[in-house]
Amino acid sequence: MSATAKPFVAGQARDSVAGQARENAAASRKGVDALSALTMLVRDDLEACNRLIVERMQSDVSLIPQLAAHIVAAGGKRLRPLLTLAAARLCGYRGQRHVGLAACVEFIHTATLLHDDVVDESALRRGQASANALFGNKASVLVGDFLFSRAFEVMVEDGSLEVLRILSSASSTIAEGEVLQLITQNDTTTTEAQYLKVIEGKTAALFAAATEVGAVVADQPPAGQAALRDFGMALGVAFQLVDDALDYSADQQALGKTVGDDFREGKITLPVLLAFARGSDEERIFWRRTLEEREQADSDLGQALALMRRHGALDDTIERARLYGDHAIAALAGFPDVAEKKALADVVAFCIERAH
Amino acid sequence: MSATAKPFVAGQARDSVAGQARENAAASRKGVDALSALTMLVRDDLEACNRLIVERMQSDVSLIPQLAAHIVAAGGKRLRPLLTLAAARLCGYRGQRHVGLAACVEFIHTATLLHDDVVDESALRRGQASANALFGNKASVLVGDFLFSRAFEVMVEDGSLEVLRILSSASSTIAEGEVLQLITQNDTTTTEAQYLKVIEGKTAALFAAATEVGAVVADQPPAGQAALRDFGMALGVAFQLVDDALDYSADQQALGKTVGDDFREGKITLPVLLAFARGSDEERIFWRRTLEEREQADSDLGQALALMRRHGALDDTIERARLYGDHAIAALAGFPDVAEKKALADVVAFCIERAH
Repeated sequence: MSATAKPFVAGQARDSVAGQARENAAASRKGVDALSALTMLVRDDLEACNRLIVERMQSDVSLIPQLAAHIVAAGGKRLRPLLTLAAARLCGYRGQRHVGLAACVEFIHTATLLHDDVVDESALRRGQASANALFGNKASVLVGDFLFSRAFEVMVEDGSLEVLRILSSASSTIAEGEVLQLITQNDTTTTEAQYLKVIEGKTAALFAAATEVGAVVADQPPAGQAALRDFGMALGVAFQLVDDALDYSADQQALGKTVGDDFREGKITLPVLLAFARGSDEERIFWRRTLEEREQADSDLGQALALMRRHGALDDTIERARLYGDHAIAALAGFPDVAEKKALADVVAFCIERAH
Repeated sequence: MSATAKPFVAGQARDSVAGQARENAAASRKGVDALSALTMLVRDDLEACNRLIVERMQSDVSLIPQLAAHIVAAGGKRLRPLLTLAAARLCGYRGQRHVGLAACVEFIHTATLLHDDVVDESALRRGQASANALFGNKASVLVGDFLFSRAFEVMVEDGSLEVLRILSSASSTIAEGEVLQLITQNDTTTTEAQYLKVIEGKTAALFAAATEVGAVVADQPPAGQAALRDFGMALGVAFQLVDDALDYSADQQALGKTVGDDFREGKITLPVLLAFARGSDEERIFWRRTLEEREQADSDLGQALALMRRHGALDDTIERARLYGDHAIAALAGFPDVAEKKALADVVAFCIERAH
């Protein structure tokens, strides 16, 4: 991952940004987390983006906005569109194209969530019953397809082939990552390299595209585009590593997702790979029974967690996330010290700290 | 639907086309159907398209080409890419861009088939076990997503925003049509207008986009683009009307699909709407029980067919298809009398005649 000290933009912090940075700082003093701070920093852009999301998910076929609203308008963190918005502003962009493209990023993300609901039979998504549970597999697949297509329609209206290239490429990489996850599921011979390819695909590719698109609309030179892409990619990997640790250790209520989903489905994540590699023969029999054969008793999730703790598998997963987080922050080095840079760096730290 | 007598292209039949037309005519005498004749006419283009399809569905994630091959390379009719290829040649196009775009059209079609497998639990697709039955819901959804994304990547390489606009718009219209079909399923109060919107969306939108894209790469003026779009749209509606009739009356072996699928799923198609509208109160009780409540005995499919025959519902559905077919052929009026024009008109007739 490249990180050069040469500034990519010569711009100064804008007045409004400075104002928002003060707000941001004030918010921090009040204990608002970094994601909220970033949200406040690009608040106007995000509100415009949210309006556009609601506007563009409309259809004469009423089930589409109804189901889409359940997931897209349910007040998710909007992390990915926030990255597009902040990346563009970091590059000194003053137009409005980033708003539409941030909406595209969220549509693609939502489509993958809807298709993931079919795939994972998740009982909880963002703390609510999954769209799938409410509306059925069929509707989730088709509304996902609609949002995905709509994202491309909005990109076409924007008119940048470069943006279309980035987001179509990210989309096929996401699908590859998800399929690879499917193949490696229930397979304890999965390698760390395969696991990394899974999470780079299913999660980090869209983070990387989200930030790169922000740089592209701002007409950043290639080095700046690459740096923001690197930032997104490293942040995405860190984010997913933490997510995979939280799946075994989170406060279920606070996280809004079911702890133990990965275990029940036999997903092979880094905590599992580390515990398996460091485990005794007897422990490996446990992992094979529970994850490969999926013969699980009520006490097995607790046992899995105990084994992970014994081998430091969760701590080391978080530590790995921290290294990726450092990469991400280093990738920002060449950008001027505007409020967005600090806010993006803080979001990296926040994504890792949520593990505690 | 517009059809003007003014020629859109002044070109003459090319020598190679004339040669192929002779082949075509010879083939017809040998009893080869119109689709085979069209296939022979654009054989070189189609072979290039098939090579590109295999090349671009590759992925390091081996399940993707494996599953995609099961459906995309299983030797479907390639009707939609054929339409793109023939439309471009009809407009006098001599380049190779139409080959890549025909592959995009087939990828989008394949993605919808894969997602439809999830949706419909079809036991048979193109005479083979459905991808879903072999690989599971998850893989079908994700490989469909991959092919869909790949289609957009190939379009971006082609570089035409107009083509991207046409195919992204078609894609969201397809999803809308499929969702509307889901909503109207098991609902005997569905109107003919709603049914028409379903089939325009789920089938005709991609036919229309396929032929329009052919005109666009050939730099046809707007009237020519609109005429080929009209042709595709009318052909697509005719094609689906016949399909919906065949679902009750086909020779299962010859069609390569299960007869009675629509009935078992409670899909509300034109044969049902006509039989229901023309039926007695007692017959409507039958339709409500079998399609709305989906309480079906073994003899009910036979009874449904008998009621449809009593009320001329199948014949009138085919008659409706014939009207759309006439529209399609009329839309070709402005094009010069090259071999592709005759071949496309013959395909319209072929799509309708397969009902007998």
